[in-house]
Amino acid sequence: MTTISIIGSGNMATAIGTRAAKHGHTIELMSRNTAKAQALADQIGNGATVGTFGARPVGDIVIVAVLYAGAVDVVEHYGDALAGKVLVDITNPFNADASGVVTTAGNSVSQQIAAVAPEGAHVVKAFNTIFGGVIAEDKPLDAFYAGDSAEVKARVAAFLESLGMRALDAGGLEMTHVLEWAGILLVGLARSGAGFDLALGAEVR
Amino acid sequence: MTTISIIGSGNMATAIGTRAAKHGHTIELMSRNTAKAQALADQIGNGATVGTFGARPVGDIVIVAVLYAGAVDVVEHYGDALAGKVLVDITNPFNADASGVVTTAGNSVSQQIAAVAPEGAHVVKAFNTIFGGVIAEDKPLDAFYAGDSAEVKARVAAFLESLGMRALDAGGLEMTHVLEWAGILLVGLARSGAGFDLALGAEVR
Repeated sequence: MTTISIIGSGNMATAIGTRAAKHGHTIELMSRNTAKAQALADQIGNGATVGTFGARPVGDIVIVAVLYAGAVDVVEHYGDALAGKVLVDITNPFNADASGVVTTAGNSVSQQIAAVAPEGAHVVKAFNTIFGGVIAEDKPLDAFYAGDSAEVKARVAAFLESLGMRALDAGGLEMTHVLEWAGILLVGLARSGAGFDLALGAEVR
Repeated sequence: MTTISIIGSGNMATAIGTRAAKHGHTIELMSRNTAKAQALADQIGNGATVGTFGARPVGDIVIVAVLYAGAVDVVEHYGDALAGKVLVDITNPFNADASGVVTTAGNSVSQQIAAVAPEGAHVVKAFNTIFGGVIAEDKPLDAFYAGDSAEVKARVAAFLESLGMRALDAGGLEMTHVLEWAGILLVGLARSGAGFDLALGAEVR
């Protein structure tokens, strides 16, 4: 029941925004393409608004829902407007044939974002092990996340749980690179017979 | 209902051998430590036998259940005795603090094993995203696998399914490195609150 700001207006912005709105959150959309953001806000409804790309987001949780190649630039562009915010990195930095990632251990997209993020901002990676279509279906599923602050991770976990997901902590910021590899596993399974209506999960006993 | 040969006599050999025997397979154990292999054969029962370490295994499927650092050496030691066999690599090549793997893309343990394996042998990676204790529990769970031959993978998948597991194909031999990273995810989740009674899985709709 909070405002969630989403930077982006593509498939993942649509999926996460739609699901979050269904669960009572108010969505603020911020995109370079204001018309597209407005169309998505209209589609999501439930009081969704359009913010100015680059201005300070309303939400304390900001989903950076852009392609991996642009994520660091977008956070740099926002600069101090993101001070103190929780930045949720959802990117999958796949190589050309999605057989591996273009990042390296210690230099995940999340870690690159953290390096340029302003004072008091924290980065948590989440949503990258679930296909957008599955997020949008609004059924129970597992959501892995990783990040560098227990307090901030608890807030993201509460948000994920509010969406009907089981939030599973994968560890500290260094583990965001592991989640990037998990994105490759997701695609590998999808291509090898499981199909794209797929999310990674865990069996916890 | 086939003979499964297992090289090794440690925790994973015990877990896989015990589960396979419960599901009607006959187990052949091969270990440098013959006394340990015999004790494990006695424990597993169901006609389990002890083979000579380095000799040709009885089973068409051979589980290489040794630690990653020794897996390539063991396969080299067996040499032509493994000709035509299906070698199942279960290793997790973790770095010192299990925050990453010591292998690189294109050079997974499975790929290293394939490089030294004899004529007609094929390598499939499996079991490395499930803790041994969970394998031994003999409950339904997901099992990811990857390898370079569709025909051979189908045989491994049938074996996994015969153990009450849902076998999920992650792709070709290059994807075995992705499964190695998935082993890190498993440990990360376990350490971060999920506990070690854990296996990775997928939600397929």
